[in-house]
Amino acid sequence: MIMRTKSIFNKYPNPTREQIRSELSGNLCRCTGYTKIIEAVETARDYLNGKEPSKLEFMPQKSAMDLSIVGKRLPKIDAPDKATGRALYTDDIVLPNMIYGKLLLSSVPHARIRSIDTSRAKALPGVKVILTGADVPDTRWGTSPPRYDETILAKDKVRFVGDVVAAVAAIDEETCYKALELIYVGYEELPAVFDPMEAMKEGAPRLFDDKYENNINTHVDHHFGDIDKGFAEADHIREQRFTGNRTYQNPMEPHCSIAEWDRHGRVTLYTSTQVVHYVHHQLSRILGLPLGDIRVIMTHCGGGFGAKAATTTIEVMSIFLSKVAGCPVKMRFNREEMYLFGRGRHKQYIDLKIGVKKDGTITAVKQKAVLEGGAYSSFGIVSTYYAGSMLTTLYKFPNYKYDGYRVNTNLPPCGAFRGHGCPHPRFAFESLLTMIADDIGMDPIDIRLKNAMTPEYHTCNDLDIHSCEFTACLEEVRKRSGWDHKKGKLPNGHGIGIGCGGFVSGAGYPIYRSKFPHSSAIIKVVEDGSRAVLFIGDADIGQGSDTVLAMAACEAMGISFDRISVVSADSDLTPIGFGAYSSRVTLMGGNACKMAGEEIKKQILAQAAGIMNVDADKLEAKENRIYVKEDPSTFIPWEDAGSAHFSKKGPLLGKGHYSPPEGLGGKYKGAAVGTSPAYSFSATICEVEVDMETGKVRVKNFWDAHDCGTAVNPMLVEAQAEGAVLMGMSEVLFENEVFDKNGKMINADLHNYLIATSADMPEIHSTIVDSYEPEGPYGAKEVGEGATLPVLGAIANAVADAIGARVFELPITPQRVLEAIQMANRK
Amino acid sequence: MIMRTKSIFNKYPNPTREQIRSELSGNLCRCTGYTKIIEAVETARDYLNGKEPSKLEFMPQKSAMDLSIVGKRLPKIDAPDKATGRALYTDDIVLPNMIYGKLLLSSVPHARIRSIDTSRAKALPGVKVILTGADVPDTRWGTSPPRYDETILAKDKVRFVGDVVAAVAAIDEETCYKALELIYVGYEELPAVFDPMEAMKEGAPRLFDDKYENNINTHVDHHFGDIDKGFAEADHIREQRFTGNRTYQNPMEPHCSIAEWDRHGRVTLYTSTQVVHYVHHQLSRILGLPLGDIRVIMTHCGGGFGAKAATTTIEVMSIFLSKVAGCPVKMRFNREEMYLFGRGRHKQYIDLKIGVKKDGTITAVKQKAVLEGGAYSSFGIVSTYYAGSMLTTLYKFPNYKYDGYRVNTNLPPCGAFRGHGCPHPRFAFESLLTMIADDIGMDPIDIRLKNAMTPEYHTCNDLDIHSCEFTACLEEVRKRSGWDHKKGKLPNGHGIGIGCGGFVSGAGYPIYRSKFPHSSAIIKVVEDGSRAVLFIGDADIGQGSDTVLAMAACEAMGISFDRISVVSADSDLTPIGFGAYSSRVTLMGGNACKMAGEEIKKQILAQAAGIMNVDADKLEAKENRIYVKEDPSTFIPWEDAGSAHFSKKGPLLGKGHYSPPEGLGGKYKGAAVGTSPAYSFSATICEVEVDMETGKVRVKNFWDAHDCGTAVNPMLVEAQAEGAVLMGMSEVLFENEVFDKNGKMINADLHNYLIATSADMPEIHSTIVDSYEPEGPYGAKEVGEGATLPVLGAIANAVADAIGARVFELPITPQRVLEAIQMANRK
Repeated sequence: MIMRTKSIFNKYPNPTREQIRSELSGNLCRCTGYTKIIEAVETARDYLNGKEPSKLEFMPQKSAMDLSIVGKRLPKIDAPDKATGRALYTDDIVLPNMIYGKLLLSSVPHARIRSIDTSRAKALPGVKVILTGADVPDTRWGTSPPRYDETILAKDKVRFVGDVVAAVAAIDEETCYKALELIYVGYEELPAVFDPMEAMKEGAPRLFDDKYENNINTHVDHHFGDIDKGFAEADHIREQRFTGNRTYQNPMEPHCSIAEWDRHGRVTLYTSTQVVHYVHHQLSRILGLPLGDIRVIMTHCGGGFGAKAATTTIEVMSIFLSKVAGCPVKMRFNREEMYLFGRGRHKQYIDLKIGVKKDGTITAVKQKAVLEGGAYSSFGIVSTYYAGSMLTTLYKFPNYKYDGYRVNTNLPPCGAFRGHGCPHPRFAFESLLTMIADDIGMDPIDIRLKNAMTPEYHTCNDLDIHSCEFTACLEEVRKRSGWDHKKGKLPNGHGIGIGCGGFVSGAGYPIYRSKFPHSSAIIKVVEDGSRAVLFIGDADIGQGSDTVLAMAACEAMGISFDRISVVSADSDLTPIGFGAYSSRVTLMGGNACKMAGEEIKKQILAQAAGIMNVDADKLEAKENRIYVKEDPSTFIPWEDAGSAHFSKKGPLLGKGHYSPPEGLGGKYKGAAVGTSPAYSFSATICEVEVDMETGKVRVKNFWDAHDCGTAVNPMLVEAQAEGAVLMGMSEVLFENEVFDKNGKMINADLHNYLIATSADMPEIHSTIVDSYEPEGPYGAKEVGEGATLPVLGAIANAVADAIGARVFELPITPQRVLEAIQMANRK
Repeated sequence: MIMRTKSIFNKYPNPTREQIRSELSGNLCRCTGYTKIIEAVETARDYLNGKEPSKLEFMPQKSAMDLSIVGKRLPKIDAPDKATGRALYTDDIVLPNMIYGKLLLSSVPHARIRSIDTSRAKALPGVKVILTGADVPDTRWGTSPPRYDETILAKDKVRFVGDVVAAVAAIDEETCYKALELIYVGYEELPAVFDPMEAMKEGAPRLFDDKYENNINTHVDHHFGDIDKGFAEADHIREQRFTGNRTYQNPMEPHCSIAEWDRHGRVTLYTSTQVVHYVHHQLSRILGLPLGDIRVIMTHCGGGFGAKAATTTIEVMSIFLSKVAGCPVKMRFNREEMYLFGRGRHKQYIDLKIGVKKDGTITAVKQKAVLEGGAYSSFGIVSTYYAGSMLTTLYKFPNYKYDGYRVNTNLPPCGAFRGHGCPHPRFAFESLLTMIADDIGMDPIDIRLKNAMTPEYHTCNDLDIHSCEFTACLEEVRKRSGWDHKKGKLPNGHGIGIGCGGFVSGAGYPIYRSKFPHSSAIIKVVEDGSRAVLFIGDADIGQGSDTVLAMAACEAMGISFDRISVVSADSDLTPIGFGAYSSRVTLMGGNACKMAGEEIKKQILAQAAGIMNVDADKLEAKENRIYVKEDPSTFIPWEDAGSAHFSKKGPLLGKGHYSPPEGLGGKYKGAAVGTSPAYSFSATICEVEVDMETGKVRVKNFWDAHDCGTAVNPMLVEAQAEGAVLMGMSEVLFENEVFDKNGKMINADLHNYLIATSADMPEIHSTIVDSYEPEGPYGAKEVGEGATLPVLGAIANAVADAIGARVFELPITPQRVLEAIQMANRK
């Protein structure tokens, strides 16, 4: 959730939309779009007043598939609890005898640790435990096994301002902070490097002595087709350097973990994570315990966007502190510690070259990307791979060369941030494609239509596209925005631009070689058949996956949505789910839930067959009834069959699991990598107004259209789209991490690191196009991350249209806009 | 738990037995026996110090059945959490925005309510809700459907001091109590009756105008065989009146409930109960909601003994208060409120007549019992039935007449207390049988052996006895106590006595006609096969059922006891289990868990067969290995098969359920009633010392022997036996509820209501005889309640032996002992 909206109800028991809007004004927006927040509050209000939530309608696919739940605009299953303050987040939990922990962070960007003296800190009353590198195992860990290069606590070196040197547990946080000040660390400072271009040079300071030559953490080199031939065939070629920005996900809920090492030798961890299973796996490895000796419980989660997509230091250290202290330990980041822990978006330096024929047909694309990676690997391999490989899914081109370099610097590590690796390359591509369209006198939408992806296409880099309604997305936004009346016809300072995007629906392969299904589900029916409880390992981080998965399960069982409860992401209670990343949950978790629901339905129909004296295959279950297909007026209540089953056969259980099919392609150096069973598509048109005096950009309108397959819940699809627009806009216009000359971040707070507020919200007009993905549950695929991708290029193109000049570096600040205007005027 | 033992560890990190003993000194004892508490603390200490708990040994059956878990003296699975204060009880839970509730109890024993004025109370700052009878549904409820005679709040009449008139919710309990004082109730007082003999007389005040003529709430009349013929065949007949006492279970943890009526219209109730399913069912009925709309969660429970075996007013009213308040409401009884809510043991007036032949053979038994029932029915039908029907299970006799009357009085309602209905009749029978033995010059043990029950016997009242090692119990205690050297040979003031007992292993039929299995279980194996999680609806109230059920499941799966976790008694997460009453859990829950475990093993062996390339039926699973039966050195780890299953087939689940077989007999008025699949037997010898000056009785030794079938965990069997001795001794010597002439209980606190303390503990020498019950899991049956039954008679007989006179009324106070001595001297 973006904020606790309970305060609204304290002021207004029955708030009007205007009252809600005025109360929300000035709040920071992140995650769900602003209008969706209002809708969520209204839903909560209706619940509070005992009214049925309004706006139930179906998508077009619904009738074709004879669905009764999937396609409905149902309120999120957790909305009332979140809107009224009932939902518990990790930091809301207080265990008996719990103490608190904090981390000592390096104050220097690069140094050898010569000594650590904790004696004064240990003597401070209230301090329970102090651990340094010498007290924890030597295990190397990280996010993906080939790049396990982090130690639990710094052993010999620190590599950035924020690197973790020690951990303290004490009776409260204040005592922890006092103790941290009393720890003396003897640093032998080393030269540091903060710029990836500098870091790659011979003789630059090296972060790791034993690996990553020239600080090149990862190099992905792809060449598909014949790049030279491709450019030779082109009538027009253009090349440009684009530069991204270093941004942070800024989930509204800071990371929090509570660990308890109990008397049975079992570890219980409550944590705010996107990925219970990855945390579980990583802890098993670090602690040397089987999965069964560790219980990872995810509570409600206040956003992630990638910031919580891997194991964190507080998850690991709260456990080690608890082991020594003999009691539960809570650790949480404050906002500055979140920025310093990092794992935000890599800043990318992109050299992009595109060749086209006279009619706009793309003949060749060449991209070199340098990703500023910070001190450790995190998701580095995947980020670098995605930055190149995903460029091929929107437009068809036969010849492609990509070189991606991820470079270590003495800054906080970068990781996975909504759209993972792709937004900057997509910004570059959408910008350059529009520039080329202008060059050859073609409409920017026409050049996109010319090259647009179509269904059942095999890309030059070995990806299989199945469903694809990209053309419909382009046509939809063209029509709805009035593009043809506006493009090139707006007054000075007003502009319109198009951008496109799309993403994977889950990675085909896990980050480590897990042998387990990617998602699985168990359904238990309450004994009188009146309710089903869905147990699912995947994580709802606010995106609404509990709701979507429950809808898929209800559809499969034939029960209504008010008859299901969800227990998610608790490794003791729920079966494995890889979690919320790579936009995977709807497709993968959805398939597992559908399968579990179908297993329930099969048993229910068999039971009903006995009661009704009709063959099971002549029966159907829907909307809490089991009826004869050919005569729906002959039916029994669903719960009658449910309770009869329980009575005769004991517990009624269903289980399901999903793994992507083999042979998804997208091999890299012989190994199958993170490609997907399905791809999404979207197009967005943006209208901006630029103050030509100050350079300030105001985004006025967004028209976006999405091919997400079947929209399981159109309201949540729109929420994702609106959240993506807001987040993308914020990144394009405002956000940037700034460091001083010693590598210390100087805007590590929400005052100086600007993010969009509700006051910046444009009008958003979302459309979902008709589509069906055969690999997805009821035809569904992703929308969460893909919706972010078109936003960057659309705003950049609209600003260029407004000012007659282009800003090639993000964020598009007033200063850069003014510089571009001045540069254009000088020409 | 009897007390929080954490304080011991605060004082001594590594306490010796002596230190533990000194710390425990003076504590009230309830539940587990004193020496078991010491053992539990020692176990916790060993855990804390990382040592393996000691004392692992097997019962004789173990080797015969080739068992690896069942029969081991394993520490309780919850012992470390309870010993270190980690375990959460309901009152430890604090929910966001929670408020508190309290009940207004009637100050008069019998009255019509003419008016209630809550206006002053409502005006008190901090008061949120006040509800009276007019604000809640008219539903009648109670424990068993034919006697639903309670209203949620008093509608028109109050029937005892403590009857519930109104409920208040406020920001804290202090405010609640202040508000209660401000509520004015206009009573029109009615004549009251407190003695059941008076209440049965014509013209006595009636509690219910429309039913229960002469206040006779229940009348059970049994006649089996030919009672006149039986007495005609007797050579010696003796008849005697015995009087029981009105006692209260006094679990150390007071009742506590937290209810939340959420925004989905679902109710969540945390409660300290023995019977999640009965509460669930009753709430469904009262609230008019399906089971699925109500979630009942039992937390750790600090004892029940029957006091928590049915739905309570605070469970119901916390929900109604929460519905109106819109936030969670916590309600808890203080100690006085516990006594006034009542549901303790009925005081019974027993006229018992036994006829025997010269050789001691019993020819006829006639019993009339009047049970003082208090104001409402509670478990009345069952209590009255058990008081008669269970008399036939220990000794064989062909002719039996029983008349049981349960009579309403203007006192707190009586209910089910450990041994439910049977201890007083058993006290009478064991006393009278010893008197008859003396009369005919026979050793009291010999007369018991003469008539002792044998296996596979059908009693005169239609009960089927299967396993029975009663004779072995008698011989065991005779031998171990040195009976033959002591009986009749001890000096004045010293005595030895024998008493016997036994009980059902669960009731054959539920209290209401539930159509569901009595117990069921689900097992989920963690994905790497390293642990199983057992989901079971039955309730651990301190007796150790989580441990015993987990042992049965481990045995069936073939894994060790450190590889299982238990989730019990949460209606959303766990499948139905009727709960902890009638000594049912080991047999019924155990069978369900065994079946679920066997379902897991079947799948595991199938998976292993593929890996090992051996037919599944040639494999066995035990102690975390799957091996070839004929060559145990060929094996794979259990977890390899577990993870392979998960990898290929998704979640690995097992489920089991148990219902007693049909045709258990024990019909009453045509309907099958609460008889059991199996019966336990026990004999106990007690040695006492009586101060002939003061009449004070000191119990010195107890030798008890139990036929509980296979002892799943001998340590827990001994704990049950020791707890039963302590509790029984406390009831015999100390306990009694005392009321003033207006029906107000005057000793409703732990200062004036005496219960045994650790200082009163005798030495206890428990034996478990070799036995196997075919209906039970691995041959197990009950021990929990049955072990209480022999204690009363054994002490009474020992006191009689010591003083040469007999006390016929409980408790056997010093005053009554002196009176008996004086009476005997006078003769």
